[in-house]
Amino acid sequence: MSKDLTTELTIDAGQVRSTLTGFIRSEIASAGFSHAVIGLSGGIDSVLACYLAAEALGPQNVLAIRMPYRDSSQESLDHAQMTIEATGVQAMTVEITPMVEPLFQLYPDISDLRKGNIMARQRMIILYDQSVVFNGLVVGTGNKTEILLGYATLFGDSACAFNPIGDLYKTQVRQLARALGIPEVIVGKAPSADLWAGQTDEGELGFTYAEVDKLLFLLVDKRYSPQQCIEAGFAEPFVHTVIQRIRRSQFKRTPPPIGKLNGPAAGYGFPELPDWGA
Amino acid sequence: MSKDLTTELTIDAGQVRSTLTGFIRSEIASAGFSHAVIGLSGGIDSVLACYLAAEALGPQNVLAIRMPYRDSSQESLDHAQMTIEATGVQAMTVEITPMVEPLFQLYPDISDLRKGNIMARQRMIILYDQSVVFNGLVVGTGNKTEILLGYATLFGDSACAFNPIGDLYKTQVRQLARALGIPEVIVGKAPSADLWAGQTDEGELGFTYAEVDKLLFLLVDKRYSPQQCIEAGFAEPFVHTVIQRIRRSQFKRTPPPIGKLNGPAAGYGFPELPDWGA
Repeated sequence: MSKDLTTELTIDAGQVRSTLTGFIRSEIASAGFSHAVIGLSGGIDSVLACYLAAEALGPQNVLAIRMPYRDSSQESLDHAQMTIEATGVQAMTVEITPMVEPLFQLYPDISDLRKGNIMARQRMIILYDQSVVFNGLVVGTGNKTEILLGYATLFGDSACAFNPIGDLYKTQVRQLARALGIPEVIVGKAPSADLWAGQTDEGELGFTYAEVDKLLFLLVDKRYSPQQCIEAGFAEPFVHTVIQRIRRSQFKRTPPPIGKLNGPAAGYGFPELPDWGA
Repeated sequence: MSKDLTTELTIDAGQVRSTLTGFIRSEIASAGFSHAVIGLSGGIDSVLACYLAAEALGPQNVLAIRMPYRDSSQESLDHAQMTIEATGVQAMTVEITPMVEPLFQLYPDISDLRKGNIMARQRMIILYDQSVVFNGLVVGTGNKTEILLGYATLFGDSACAFNPIGDLYKTQVRQLARALGIPEVIVGKAPSADLWAGQTDEGELGFTYAEVDKLLFLLVDKRYSPQQCIEAGFAEPFVHTVIQRIRRSQFKRTPPPIGKLNGPAAGYGFPELPDWGA
């Protein structure tokens, strides 16, 4: 089983690169913009999105913003710097420590999870503020695995105007990154939200991306039932864990419901614009 | 024309009250929660949402949070306090000044608009952080007029788990508020985001809610064409201004597009869950 799924998850990197740079150009142009802003942590997702945006728009039209916290790893910052130099994008650094500390200090027993969410949202604030100054749109950097598992902070790192890598599973992100020549030191490192020291995605999630991407591919792309996934060789508890994560994170992927006066509750109001002419 | 439209915009307050409290109960219960958190500015929208949430869930299950900035009006705080006392909800106050000032100070020439967006998003951070502590969902407080005109900060005051008043035009918010016995000093004051001294919604927008609600009702609820609105008596420049506002704020009402590897770009990934059984 595993071998076939690995093959099915393999992308045509050249074609995907062309599709996604075209998507970036089209999103920016149709919104009447020419610039983009991106939060660059130094992790593979934001690095890949930065490479794609630089190629699509020209590096001078892309602003990468590093937003370290006091505890952020030096390695992440170094990888962000390598990316800035390799792509030639514009860059700035805004330290979030003085902005988040006043809130942390109100709650001496605040958990790492709460701190992580606050930091992710503080970065969104800076990114959106700078997008106004730079006159650009905010590029999303969440991959498909993370979106489906809800492994992101709502209104934080998931906040964006459009997302060029949101249909790529994490293992496909790695494949495309290698094809684009992104250094192995970035592609091969253990993925981490870098919200606290020693945090790794796979440690927190309790499974590897290589495993879960195959299961997600069957559940989401192939529309397998849970039973069919089990018959394909996945352990029942793993299948149920992943389905629960998808279900419980559905609210992160859909607009909040509005209480309708007449008719059923609906998503965030008036999504389809009528044809009002020119 | 105006008289008929005023009649058509009139709601059956008793029925709407029942529909919206039922919506709140249903949203909270279906998510497996029993508590709600609400940002209470003291303006009519958040006051109305607070009254509805208190009635729907019981006041002990609702936490109202006041988040003043140094410049926030004392009147707003007083109106929030009146609401807390009248409804009996739980309450806390978190001053945002020390959290936003470090960012303001990086940019000595920062505009009021940028400051306003930063403050609205800082309040979202506190609200979502406290929703975890209180184990509640965040109640939205944006009305239909504001949602359609895009007159809110994305990932700021528009951020919520569900919104009980999002299908009420501002003039209908006033009608329901009066029916619920919300004090006239709150219902009758000039609406303001209170992001800077002297700011009023109608001053910023350039038209009154009474006017624009009638036009929006024709465009959105009645699906009139621009020409039909002009024939109904609305000035052509006003019709075009409002249509432009709706169009340009569409991105605030819809999930960000994802670049798809196969097929057209789509909203934020996998919105319809399959039936995976129990």
